[in-house]
Amino acid sequence: MSLDKSHNAQRTSWVASAQAAGCDFSLQNLPWGRFRRAGSTEPWRIGVAIGDQILDLAAARPVAGWPAALAPQLDALAQGDLAAVIAAPKATRVALRLAISDALATGSPQQAALAGCLVAQAAAEMALPCTIRDYTDFYTGIHHATTVGKLFRPDNPLLPNYKWVPIGYHGRASSIVVSGTPLRRPLGQTRAPTSPADEAPAFGPCQRLDYELELGAIVAQGNALGEPVPITAAEDRLAGLVLLNDWSARDLQAWEYQPLGPFLAKNFGSTLSPWLVTMEALAPYRVPFTRPAGDPQPLPYLDSAANRAAGAIDITLEVWLQTAAMRQRGEAATRLSSSNFRDAYWTLAQLLTHHASNGCNLATGDLLGTGTQSGPEAGQGGSLLELSMGGKQPLALPGGETRSFLADGDTLTLRAFAQQAGGPRVGFGACSGTVLPAPLTA
Amino acid sequence: MSLDKSHNAQRTSWVASAQAAGCDFSLQNLPWGRFRRAGSTEPWRIGVAIGDQILDLAAARPVAGWPAALAPQLDALAQGDLAAVIAAPKATRVALRLAISDALATGSPQQAALAGCLVAQAAAEMALPCTIRDYTDFYTGIHHATTVGKLFRPDNPLLPNYKWVPIGYHGRASSIVVSGTPLRRPLGQTRAPTSPADEAPAFGPCQRLDYELELGAIVAQGNALGEPVPITAAEDRLAGLVLLNDWSARDLQAWEYQPLGPFLAKNFGSTLSPWLVTMEALAPYRVPFTRPAGDPQPLPYLDSAANRAAGAIDITLEVWLQTAAMRQRGEAATRLSSSNFRDAYWTLAQLLTHHASNGCNLATGDLLGTGTQSGPEAGQGGSLLELSMGGKQPLALPGGETRSFLADGDTLTLRAFAQQAGGPRVGFGACSGTVLPAPLTA
Repeated sequence: MSLDKSHNAQRTSWVASAQAAGCDFSLQNLPWGRFRRAGSTEPWRIGVAIGDQILDLAAARPVAGWPAALAPQLDALAQGDLAAVIAAPKATRVALRLAISDALATGSPQQAALAGCLVAQAAAEMALPCTIRDYTDFYTGIHHATTVGKLFRPDNPLLPNYKWVPIGYHGRASSIVVSGTPLRRPLGQTRAPTSPADEAPAFGPCQRLDYELELGAIVAQGNALGEPVPITAAEDRLAGLVLLNDWSARDLQAWEYQPLGPFLAKNFGSTLSPWLVTMEALAPYRVPFTRPAGDPQPLPYLDSAANRAAGAIDITLEVWLQTAAMRQRGEAATRLSSSNFRDAYWTLAQLLTHHASNGCNLATGDLLGTGTQSGPEAGQGGSLLELSMGGKQPLALPGGETRSFLADGDTLTLRAFAQQAGGPRVGFGACSGTVLPAPLTA
Repeated sequence: MSLDKSHNAQRTSWVASAQAAGCDFSLQNLPWGRFRRAGSTEPWRIGVAIGDQILDLAAARPVAGWPAALAPQLDALAQGDLAAVIAAPKATRVALRLAISDALATGSPQQAALAGCLVAQAAAEMALPCTIRDYTDFYTGIHHATTVGKLFRPDNPLLPNYKWVPIGYHGRASSIVVSGTPLRRPLGQTRAPTSPADEAPAFGPCQRLDYELELGAIVAQGNALGEPVPITAAEDRLAGLVLLNDWSARDLQAWEYQPLGPFLAKNFGSTLSPWLVTMEALAPYRVPFTRPAGDPQPLPYLDSAANRAAGAIDITLEVWLQTAAMRQRGEAATRLSSSNFRDAYWTLAQLLTHHASNGCNLATGDLLGTGTQSGPEAGQGGSLLELSMGGKQPLALPGGETRSFLADGDTLTLRAFAQQAGGPRVGFGACSGTVLPAPLTA
């Protein structure tokens, strides 16, 4: 897509904190979220993050100076209906972004009135950015697929379909929660692979609780059942991205996953970050989609000139851990790994087109997970399973603790941002959850 | 559960067609459905099937004689809100069934007034019985799992977890359609297992389109995230059953399903029957849950005295096919197979308890598919894959046609009923769909 003045890296906001070093929510970002005053029971409102503040779009609606053509969208936002806006045509979404960028830019004639429409993020609580209708998780991290494949199938790590099919499966929508929601360690069946065939499995708390570092794409516009979406139309049907922690119970997974895939190992909870970073905000960070020499090129239905030119996105991804002991000692979280979404084997456009290629109908608010994003180097694994080599090499943490898998009380936080040298940051905020002890067994 | 007079097999209805031989909708059934006059755009109404008629619960609401204590439920039904009723406590659902049974029984003082509240089923169109929030498909048909396992993994048909774990996976909610909706043959990637590893897969219309004969349970009451449901509480959280055709693209499935399970091979459409047959209506047909000698008993969390005594249900299941040529010749559908739900390896209570055992939250309107219900004998397979031995032994149809898999124009219909010798039938009606040609490839 073409860049406009909302992408101009020199542009600043009259909200001074937007220019702070390391601030995720620069004027060039402008992600959507649903919020209310912390502790209140008031209806969720739509806001745009700017610096350490939220522009309240209900309060901002009566302010003079908004473009008249955007009245329907601004009314919908004021009424708390984000779906109505993310489902709007691409051109409308671009115009809306530009209007909000202008309103928050230094020198805006709306500044005086809008200054009263800011809510401090520290004083707000957040909901999921929208209702997630159907949730699909893909498997685009080839380094993850290879490393994990070695652990589950030493003789056969990367299956023959991987480089042809954007592998995906359906996840559980009901147990998707917003960042900050604590997560209870699951109970489940486990049996060691080395057990005799007639030995009964155990049932009890998961012993190998893990996270997975993912991004999730939110669908803007769906398709009718039976009507595929060509790859040339796929990008415009995506609203934006959030962070996604696909919590995983590795011991349950190893025992249950054949032949129909992971189930209880995953559906006890998945955490999303609350701010929907739009595809428009990520436009300056698009990079070519490439394949390693010797790898097959995508089949024609998954190939387009635009996808080759700029199908991938340069987004830095990070995982941070704070244990209960670290919290007690007042120590900040420690970074476990860093990787980049540009290393994904498939692009978002390919995922959407593949998903609809059989006629499956997608809808506004559907979530497409990218799968775990691990980098090519050791130490860039997007899960503890990878970082600890299947639990065999525990990670040493500051202060002397170690982790092969997550312990009760651990707070796991995903972070991500796109940024060019010296430029503004388009960040995702935090995707965070703390592990609670398992419920008592019956 | 205890039986009451609504289950009395001698009881008849003043709607004469309810007593017709082979009628699915006897006075002992009383399934819920959502309907409107065919071809209209009026809002969906809630009805109860009786004989070849539907009792319109909006029209029936003002009729005198309903129990005063049921006013909230009758009001909700009149307003088209079935979820409010199926989410009601078990005792309320039982009382409501009894009131409707009394109203439709021969000699009811409400007969004269309610006679004007009937709509002929032939004049109605049906919606899904409720909005399906999350859809999980299980795999309880051990004969299906064994036969299909042999085709996909000749050396390893039934995996070691099968007899311990009620295997399940998440399905796609958006593409669930009501009986009568035509289904477009999907496009997709395929590659023969014998192909060289560097050969590109093909992309085009599915060549091995199949059905799967399943029942689906609708959840009445859910659980909070992190709070398992003991098996002793599971039955009361089920509202009832529908028929489910889990259409399957076998060639897509074979190529895509490892390691994360079926995806595009399944999510191009799943068909439900429109009438929700309640657990109360099925109470007289409960039978013991048993395991073959030598098989392991369920782990304690999946075991209870009530489940052992009456966890299974005796329901006859049938598959019928009418090809386009048969339709042109005016020939009725031919029966492809028959099996019985009592042969399922796991009970509905075990499925629900297992699903929530890790804390996964279920909600009113969730769908739990049973997996394909094949009988132990040859010819009792619940899919063409089984009946045609993986396509190697095409079925001969009346009139000289053969089928290894479904052809364009085929109408596939599932049927089911519970019935004791000489007693009334508690039937499911039809779960039907016709195959349309694939869309043109791009």
